[in-house]
Amino acid sequence: VTAGIASPLNWEGGIDGYLSLLDQTELPGRETWLAIRDVASLCGAIHRLSVRGAPAIGIAGAFGIVIAAQHAAAHGEQVFEQRVASDAQRIGATRPTAVNLQWAVDRMMAALRRGRPDSPESAISLLLKEAQSIHHEEIASCESIARFGEPLIKEGSGVLTHCNAGPLATGGMGTALAPLLLAHGRGRRFRVYADETRPLLQGARITMWELLRAGMDATLLCDGAAASLMAEGKIQLVIVGADRIARNGDVANKIGTMSVALLARAFGIPFYVAAPFSTVDLQTPAGRDIPIEHRDPQEVAKFGGFATAPANCKVYSPAFDVTPGHLIAGLITERGIVCPVTEGGLAQVGAASPP
Amino acid sequence: VTAGIASPLNWEGGIDGYLSLLDQTELPGRETWLAIRDVASLCGAIHRLSVRGAPAIGIAGAFGIVIAAQHAAAHGEQVFEQRVASDAQRIGATRPTAVNLQWAVDRMMAALRRGRPDSPESAISLLLKEAQSIHHEEIASCESIARFGEPLIKEGSGVLTHCNAGPLATGGMGTALAPLLLAHGRGRRFRVYADETRPLLQGARITMWELLRAGMDATLLCDGAAASLMAEGKIQLVIVGADRIARNGDVANKIGTMSVALLARAFGIPFYVAAPFSTVDLQTPAGRDIPIEHRDPQEVAKFGGFATAPANCKVYSPAFDVTPGHLIAGLITERGIVCPVTEGGLAQVGAASPP
Repeated sequence: VTAGIASPLNWEGGIDGYLSLLDQTELPGRETWLAIRDVASLCGAIHRLSVRGAPAIGIAGAFGIVIAAQHAAAHGEQVFEQRVASDAQRIGATRPTAVNLQWAVDRMMAALRRGRPDSPESAISLLLKEAQSIHHEEIASCESIARFGEPLIKEGSGVLTHCNAGPLATGGMGTALAPLLLAHGRGRRFRVYADETRPLLQGARITMWELLRAGMDATLLCDGAAASLMAEGKIQLVIVGADRIARNGDVANKIGTMSVALLARAFGIPFYVAAPFSTVDLQTPAGRDIPIEHRDPQEVAKFGGFATAPANCKVYSPAFDVTPGHLIAGLITERGIVCPVTEGGLAQVGAASPP
Repeated sequence: VTAGIASPLNWEGGIDGYLSLLDQTELPGRETWLAIRDVASLCGAIHRLSVRGAPAIGIAGAFGIVIAAQHAAAHGEQVFEQRVASDAQRIGATRPTAVNLQWAVDRMMAALRRGRPDSPESAISLLLKEAQSIHHEEIASCESIARFGEPLIKEGSGVLTHCNAGPLATGGMGTALAPLLLAHGRGRRFRVYADETRPLLQGARITMWELLRAGMDATLLCDGAAASLMAEGKIQLVIVGADRIARNGDVANKIGTMSVALLARAFGIPFYVAAPFSTVDLQTPAGRDIPIEHRDPQEVAKFGGFATAPANCKVYSPAFDVTPGHLIAGLITERGIVCPVTEGGLAQVGAASPP
């Protein structure tokens, strides 16, 4: 159902291999693949959004620990774990909002401590296996999200999404786009509308690319046009992804998401979030506790080197906003749909065994 | 108070003169002035938004009738009025949503019919006088709007605006920006936030340029970040301009305006519209009757020649949306603040004599 969309990140080779990353900043113009062989390159790729999407940066972070271990091995057993731990901290801090990155790094380090490998080589081997497990589990989660969400997509309806939560954001079928891809694969006919998602245009550049590659009926709009589209009765459902879900159900996602949620509420349109449980952070009580990354003003004030605003003007550029759980009709996870999106609702579905 | 911002359009010379237009598509990079000497150039400049903003295109349209008359004069008295009328129709149809263009063209043609000039030369002279009257009246309207709106701007507050309704949109002090410029000129301290306003970035390119030139505390944001800014408590007031106001108080303005109005409502922030009565169209009963211009998809899918979306993708790109009157706290006009923004409210203030 992913219609030939390659996974945006793959481990090439064995314990002396490397991470191959699709440079998503070049889409849709060019398909450039980066060979990531050191931690600095990985952090750079995550920071400039060559790889983005909460599940995908989690997977990239996991493989980053393997790369850290490859380099640490060259410095001998005495400092091996210390060096890996130091790189783990560096990788985890690259982007603060999406919890999957820290979650994946923590899981890798826990596996290392639990496995008690007897040499750097066996440590790398153990870490590679764990990273591949994370990758495979995220792929499986996407497929489950697709199955739980697919019945929400009605024949002849219009579905709006914001930013990109498709295959390129996850390494699998995607989160928000997974139910759409499955419904399309099953022959349902419906329209998808993609907010372009300023400032970095992931909706225009990546979501539209994915939807058109999958042969779907897709239309692009500026973020400011969503209200008008809703007022015309063209939208029956909104689905977006998530970068971190607090314990109380508040959802951090790409800037502009809260705006879409409030508009959907105003027009009586159900607003769903799709995300694996790896995006739920029980350590964060509420949305106000989620650290919000602020991006470089130049991402707003310039485009392709061309100034779109006066030089050195002040810019407000949070990368994410927080949608309160009460605006969310349901949270589509790999274990079922959480509804209501509250601490109780999350605990109930989260406690259920995986399907 | 306009801090050295030149009028974006000026008539140069007498009856054989021309219209000098600041090419706003080149801002903020370059200040290029166009010398408009024929109707085709004028229509092109309006269509590609070299001159934009409802009051400014009204003024440009009025001077366009003078230019039409200059050319018609060369064809003799028999066909003079017919040729001017034909060009008037062409000018009026250049952009369908802003009513000021048609209003100005109609007023020019009415002046021509009423004046019964005895030669093409005296017709041109009469028309030039009428166009200059329109220009001067719009400047005076902006000053009145500034005075009525200025008390709304509170010390230490944050004010959000969308698109551009400043000096460059009007030929005067602006509509939405006029109260801000006056309050700033009177020493009040407050923050202004400007939505960048996709697709053509009038907020980033023009509003920010005007605010910074006036020495104001201005911050740029992507349209999708407005909800987040409101949630942080940074916004106490929203003021925008208008392209057409229907008889029942519904307001057509730049795409994204309705979104801001709905967000303001959700956060309990007063949302004001500032516009001269020339923007009120009593012939249009309600918002649904306002014709909405749809723009070239390439304005969204490309930026400075660089593709921001897959080639030939479908794009939904209305230039305007319609904010229902009930979402508007007040309409700031040259005759006072209309509140509630309803047919009755408009009739009451509209009937009052100008200040």
